[in-house]
Amino acid sequence: MDFGAAMEMSCLQKRRSSSLPELPHCLKGTDVEIEIGEATTVSDPVDAQSIKRCFPLTCGQPLLHFVNSLSRTTISSQRKEKPAVKVGVVFAGRQSPGGHNVVCGLYDAMKSHNADSSLIGFCGGTTGLFAQSFLHITENVIATYRNQGGFGMLGRTVDQIRTTQQVNAALAACQSLNLNGLVIIGGVTSNTDAAQLAETFAEANCLTKVIGVPVTINGDLKNQFVEANVGFDTVSKVNSELVSNLCTDALSAEKYYYFIRLMGRRASHITLECALQSHPNMVILSEEVTASKLTLFDITKRICDAVQARANQDKYHGVILLPEGLIESIPEAYALLQDIHVLLKKGTQTDQISTNLSPWASALFESMPIFIKRQLLLSPESDESAQLSQIETEKILAQLVETEMEKRTQNGTYKGKKFNAICHFFGYQARGSLPSKFDCEYANALGNAAYHLISAGANGYMATVTNLKHDVSQWRAGGAPFTAMMTVQRILRGPGSALVGKPSIHPVAVDLKGKPYELLLRDSERFLMDDLYANPGPIQYKGPGCDKKTISLSVEDQDYMGRLKELYACLNKVKSIVKPGCSQEILKVALSSMTSMVDILSVMSPDTNNKHL
Amino acid sequence: MDFGAAMEMSCLQKRRSSSLPELPHCLKGTDVEIEIGEATTVSDPVDAQSIKRCFPLTCGQPLLHFVNSLSRTTISSQRKEKPAVKVGVVFAGRQSPGGHNVVCGLYDAMKSHNADSSLIGFCGGTTGLFAQSFLHITENVIATYRNQGGFGMLGRTVDQIRTTQQVNAALAACQSLNLNGLVIIGGVTSNTDAAQLAETFAEANCLTKVIGVPVTINGDLKNQFVEANVGFDTVSKVNSELVSNLCTDALSAEKYYYFIRLMGRRASHITLECALQSHPNMVILSEEVTASKLTLFDITKRICDAVQARANQDKYHGVILLPEGLIESIPEAYALLQDIHVLLKKGTQTDQISTNLSPWASALFESMPIFIKRQLLLSPESDESAQLSQIETEKILAQLVETEMEKRTQNGTYKGKKFNAICHFFGYQARGSLPSKFDCEYANALGNAAYHLISAGANGYMATVTNLKHDVSQWRAGGAPFTAMMTVQRILRGPGSALVGKPSIHPVAVDLKGKPYELLLRDSERFLMDDLYANPGPIQYKGPGCDKKTISLSVEDQDYMGRLKELYACLNKVKSIVKPGCSQEILKVALSSMTSMVDILSVMSPDTNNKHL
Repeated sequence: MDFGAAMEMSCLQKRRSSSLPELPHCLKGTDVEIEIGEATTVSDPVDAQSIKRCFPLTCGQPLLHFVNSLSRTTISSQRKEKPAVKVGVVFAGRQSPGGHNVVCGLYDAMKSHNADSSLIGFCGGTTGLFAQSFLHITENVIATYRNQGGFGMLGRTVDQIRTTQQVNAALAACQSLNLNGLVIIGGVTSNTDAAQLAETFAEANCLTKVIGVPVTINGDLKNQFVEANVGFDTVSKVNSELVSNLCTDALSAEKYYYFIRLMGRRASHITLECALQSHPNMVILSEEVTASKLTLFDITKRICDAVQARANQDKYHGVILLPEGLIESIPEAYALLQDIHVLLKKGTQTDQISTNLSPWASALFESMPIFIKRQLLLSPESDESAQLSQIETEKILAQLVETEMEKRTQNGTYKGKKFNAICHFFGYQARGSLPSKFDCEYANALGNAAYHLISAGANGYMATVTNLKHDVSQWRAGGAPFTAMMTVQRILRGPGSALVGKPSIHPVAVDLKGKPYELLLRDSERFLMDDLYANPGPIQYKGPGCDKKTISLSVEDQDYMGRLKELYACLNKVKSIVKPGCSQEILKVALSSMTSMVDILSVMSPDTNNKHL
Repeated sequence: MDFGAAMEMSCLQKRRSSSLPELPHCLKGTDVEIEIGEATTVSDPVDAQSIKRCFPLTCGQPLLHFVNSLSRTTISSQRKEKPAVKVGVVFAGRQSPGGHNVVCGLYDAMKSHNADSSLIGFCGGTTGLFAQSFLHITENVIATYRNQGGFGMLGRTVDQIRTTQQVNAALAACQSLNLNGLVIIGGVTSNTDAAQLAETFAEANCLTKVIGVPVTINGDLKNQFVEANVGFDTVSKVNSELVSNLCTDALSAEKYYYFIRLMGRRASHITLECALQSHPNMVILSEEVTASKLTLFDITKRICDAVQARANQDKYHGVILLPEGLIESIPEAYALLQDIHVLLKKGTQTDQISTNLSPWASALFESMPIFIKRQLLLSPESDESAQLSQIETEKILAQLVETEMEKRTQNGTYKGKKFNAICHFFGYQARGSLPSKFDCEYANALGNAAYHLISAGANGYMATVTNLKHDVSQWRAGGAPFTAMMTVQRILRGPGSALVGKPSIHPVAVDLKGKPYELLLRDSERFLMDDLYANPGPIQYKGPGCDKKTISLSVEDQDYMGRLKELYACLNKVKSIVKPGCSQEILKVALSSMTSMVDILSVMSPDTNNKHL
């Protein structure tokens, strides 16, 4: 592979490649200063203990914030040079639109602070890191890949830095290349691996600082420090457009139900966001199925009832969304998949699997159509999960619904026209998209932040950019220690006893108490019956609307750090003015400040996401 | 269904809905005049005879051109009123992006020439026409659907106006509703039906003038009068973006071959255009397969050889495009499908089909995977063709290639890594898209032209807008008789004898001698080996690039009428200045004009498309 090679570019690609993403005020120019924030702590004592044991050197570090020492209007044009650094960057996770801009932002920041700094990119993902196979990133490479999709600049292979051998190879690479920093671009798994690397490097007194950047289309690397992931905005928008196009098509043809499976294994954020943008008739989220312990039968019945209700209004078309992770959230399907994987691991031949399953599992397996059986028998992925992209859950459901509707027709409970389903899987076609303006800007800012973290000597941090709901100029940037984002999974083994896993950054599922889901619930009945399809259209780069963000981001309450700052500010103000014997006027001001604080606190009211506060 | 109902609109939809498409100069204002052109003739004597017999009243009519009697800069603001007309419009073909704008353009033109004119839209396609079920189209309806995708304003059902009963129902509707005009929106089939309707109406002395508009995503309604079809631009662009995204993804992951099937039954225009925009590694067009009589084995071998050549360069990824019509262009597969359809028609049960096939057909059938067998056994569509959207040809090919690569691995002729394929079908998700700027403007201009044809009392015409390569302002508009676009298919029955079919407007396949295909051929070797993937990105509505047209349109030589006009102009000029004893200067000017004429003539050099000239 010719990594970093010049590409054949379309008109739009060329235009995008020469467009410099705007930087937040706090990252502009060469007067960016670092402010040390509060030390991070983990409130759960068992988690805290376990994290401290595994990450003695990198846990408990403070939050870092970048501030621009100059006023907003007068960014200094005089360059303040910082020492030259040598940094390596690697795509550790799966490709995600905007990933290239992390590299571009990092490069720009390095060069603008010292022209002698050098950036190398490891080729073919972590494999390149282990083998010390890299590319010198030049202005030409940057110009070719700025604002472009995919991970083509450097490629990727396996996503892991896990085994002792892999960790040691990474250490050897960073030491022999004399790197000041290593930037790891990826999702939950890659950033957990990065945390381990940071700890190992610290232990080995290695000069290299390890910095992670949250890049994953899944949008499931979320916590009080991380509001969004690079790629989610683009992938949601591309998929929403396609879902909407099918809604339009369904409404024009009036004879098909479209069953659409979208990406999202462990969390259904993409499906939820697409539903909010496109308003399909029905959405089934893995999180709902898990929470309500719905069986295949329950889900089928729910869809059939909807089809029947619509038929009563003479509507024989519709659009139903589901995430690829759905199959694993259905209890009996999950159990079947686990049983199959155990047998496969034992070396059981695929044609012998069914007879070796428990009677109920075998019965469920045999009830599936042949093409699904073959998909269920696929070996699990490297992370032990099923090959979800290959299991056509949408076809299983469509078939079950068809059978049930025929049954209802025969027994006379359904008198409408024949039910027709067409199935779709929107997977890789969105992942390779040109990144949206938001993803370009967000990734670019994160790349800049990664540089400042390395320059400040921070190790074991994730670059963070927050306040994302607002205009780019007002975004905040900084870093948060990996360890502050970790939790420990407990697997219950009978009453009172639990097996405690390794501390990790875990994927965050859709919060069924969160505002985006609430928004969906609010309108679900109207969406189901009234065909309120909306089409966000193709991603735009110019003109009004090009700055539109995902609906999830717009309604989520995630600006914890911003809110904390506001609280501190309010509190300090009150403290500084209220004195014994102060005037009524002062008291009025204080009271008003306190009202604001109550408002802020009520927005931050406890939910599953802010247990660390 | 609530036809014409208000929609839930996204930001972009709202913006698009309030944006008025630009009109060509020749259609602006209320001073549009009609110029009667040459009478149309059919050069093939057998065709001519047959067409004259079937369409005695509507064949041989002249071409019509619209000209603006005012200069380009001073479009009169004073309205010249024309008599009020009552017009009906119907979506007869399959939904195609931009279709709504034909209605909008028609409405605008009607109202601007007389506020008392009224437009009705038949609901649910031709079914609505037969049943006289319609909607009064108001300013509100227009505002809701302007520049929007799908056919939701009026819906559609069956596409035909064929049987005597159907034709009579249409006649009764137009008579009882007292329509001055009926505008039929659709592709080759619908416009052939429209031609029949026009003839029948003329015979019945019916007041209603029948006008067709070329709207089909397939882009196969092409001839010397029609340069493009509404919807093709949008669908090609949406599909090209998705194909490009997969190319990006393939390059990032470096481990999969993507087999992508695109829409296009009888012609591969979409596949060709997507290949020109995205540069995938391989494209297989139905027209190539037909021309070279390639078997399934030949195609498989071709792909395997490509996979092997790429493996020699350590490349294990790639993207291969094919049209859904491919399966029918493969001789043995076509024969098998025909045999199956004959048996199905006879009432043979699906599980008895295989045993009733000829031995070779049965052998081919049995060699197919089960899921493909089921797809081959589907009943044919209303037009006797196979249900091509449901036959996963991409999966057949992927499986055949996989088997062959395994064989080559076993016999040692292939030493590379395992071949992995992932299959995609991009069908309906593009058809429902918001229309591109080009489709919005083109459809709008066609709608305007349809009004002027009706207003001029033309019957049996297709609205035409040409010179499309150039800026909208320079587009030409007019009408051409359906009969001038007809050909007669001959089915050879032994030497010298041929069965002559009914005159129809036939779909035009990709011209293997045409410029778009030539362009693909020129680069095919580089595309195959060098991964020159380009990504046109999402359709843009603002900023540079939003006026980009399809590559096919840009390189095709289709502006026959424009060229004829240029020729006339040159010739008249020469004739008017060259006199006996004229000066050397005049002769020089004349010579230069003649050089231009030679150039024009050489561009118009004979190919399959201009046999009528």
